Amino acid sequence: MADPGAGEPAPVRIEVRVELKPNVADAEGESVERSLGLLGIGGVRSVRTARVYELTFEGISAEEARRRANEAVERLLANPVIHRVDVRPAPA
Amino acid sequence: MADPGAGEPAPVRIEVRVELKPNVADAEGESVERSLGLLGIGGVRSVRTARVYELTFEGISAEEARRRANEAVERLLANPVIHRVDVRPAPA
Repeated sequence: MADPGAGEPAPVRIEVRVELKPNVADAEGESVERSLGLLGIGGVRSVRTARVYELTFEGISAEEARRRANEAVERLLANPVIHRVDVRPAPA
Repeated sequence: MADPGAGEPAPVRIEVRVELKPNVADAEGESVERSLGLLGIGGVRSVRTARVYELTFEGISAEEARRRANEAVERLLANPVIHRVDVRPAPA
């Protein structure tokens, strides 16, 4: 379909980082914090966790990939009541 | 103890990113990929996930914080058989 010289757009990798808002309790982070104390690893004031989704799109432009990643965040990956989200091109 | 003008070292934030090695199946990523298809969000070739732990240390130097973060990785946060880990200063 596409010009064989140009080919399809290269795959586009988008990184979505989902973390809890600062005022929302982070149970996993608190659990890690306690475990570090039990292991004798001191000096830890706090532990917060985040989830990263690396989405690889193919056959679409970078702009369209970004739009779809934002749609994925809104419809599946995050809850705006409790999450803070960052969407960016994945590091090379 | 410390010079009151200098005070304690500022808190040090270290970010630990734990992801599955490329040859290890990522069940959560596959589940997200399927769900995106069901939602009609197309063009997704793959989804990989990672866990981020942001460790905040206090009362110790940046070098010592880094050493303790590496110890936390070895003893608690990752399994070298299946995980790839990145430890770095947290972005400001």
